[in-house]
Amino acid sequence: MNLIPEPSVERLLSLTRLLDHLDVQFITSSEIESRTGWSSNTIRKDISYIEGSFASPVGYDRQKLATAIKSTLGLDKVQRFCVVGLGRLGSAYLHYSVFREEGYELVAGFDSSVNRIEILHSPVPLYPAYKMGEVISRFQITLALLCVPPEEAQKTAERLVTAGIKGIINFAPVVLQVPEGVHVRNVNVVDELRAISATIQCS
Amino acid sequence: MNLIPEPSVERLLSLTRLLDHLDVQFITSSEIESRTGWSSNTIRKDISYIEGSFASPVGYDRQKLATAIKSTLGLDKVQRFCVVGLGRLGSAYLHYSVFREEGYELVAGFDSSVNRIEILHSPVPLYPAYKMGEVISRFQITLALLCVPPEEAQKTAERLVTAGIKGIINFAPVVLQVPEGVHVRNVNVVDELRAISATIQCS
Repeated sequence: MNLIPEPSVERLLSLTRLLDHLDVQFITSSEIESRTGWSSNTIRKDISYIEGSFASPVGYDRQKLATAIKSTLGLDKVQRFCVVGLGRLGSAYLHYSVFREEGYELVAGFDSSVNRIEILHSPVPLYPAYKMGEVISRFQITLALLCVPPEEAQKTAERLVTAGIKGIINFAPVVLQVPEGVHVRNVNVVDELRAISATIQCS
Repeated sequence: MNLIPEPSVERLLSLTRLLDHLDVQFITSSEIESRTGWSSNTIRKDISYIEGSFASPVGYDRQKLATAIKSTLGLDKVQRFCVVGLGRLGSAYLHYSVFREEGYELVAGFDSSVNRIEILHSPVPLYPAYKMGEVISRFQITLALLCVPPEEAQKTAERLVTAGIKGIINFAPVVLQVPEGVHVRNVNVVDELRAISATIQCS
């Protein structure tokens, strides 16, 4: 467990994506600066949080640095997650094969409609919503994709937190209130449309 | 058309969401600072880009400011968009009613499989992919949700740009290369899972 400020975590995540796509053996902090726009001071500070040996006189060893960042950020461990709410969007994610390739194992889907669960074809075991607590704790699931209708999002989030979920990707267009120690990221296509139309308008 | 730096656009978008959820008549830049963490200098600078009369001796008029921001960012106009790639994710968005409530009109769906188009039930007109250019130009569509498989994303993006699309929300886990003047925003659930597990690990 390392205490790393959230903006540094975000930059380090982007940095691993950059490093994974480069085709060089070594990279310096000024080369990273010219590709990302972050100052080399910021970059060196961020990398100072990472444990491992990846520095050399000619720069950072690209692969070793990427591996060390992933290890420090815990991205090298398989994480179990569930999908809650099996409407069109939630059930689409049941079939998304990229999760497993990237180290995320989808182990359960939940829906309040038992009928829906019986009808859906799914490569992942499905459960009625009232079994959420039991299943999440049995499989030690820590992450959830929340795909329920907006009016059910807050109370479902509370049940997930009670069951032991530490991170929620929220697809409902509402701001969730969660206790400290639980993390939420919002995926909102309308917000993305707004951001992109505003950028087009103002550039 | 106003030239506003992209970070200011992003903050102004968040600010409209904040303002829409508040229940006060007036708000000062220091009150905004305490709710957002942005310095009041930054806030005043951002707001200086906005045209309209919303300032008063006791602060900004909340509703007038929100309206003025939306108008300057072009969010008060209905924008037409299309969905390209009608697999599980793309076809889920055909049924998403929030778009229209928020001023985004989904006017067309495209898929390379004519068979798929005939099978799908859709409230939105569907077209085979070869009609993309014609339909996008006829309906003056400027935005697209790109939901095709990763290996088709780049070439489909190029066809969209040729057809006149200025903004792409990209759901494929690939980095799109687009010409200047075309804007891309990536929605990547795996990246969100990574960000949230890294935040849990490091906090």
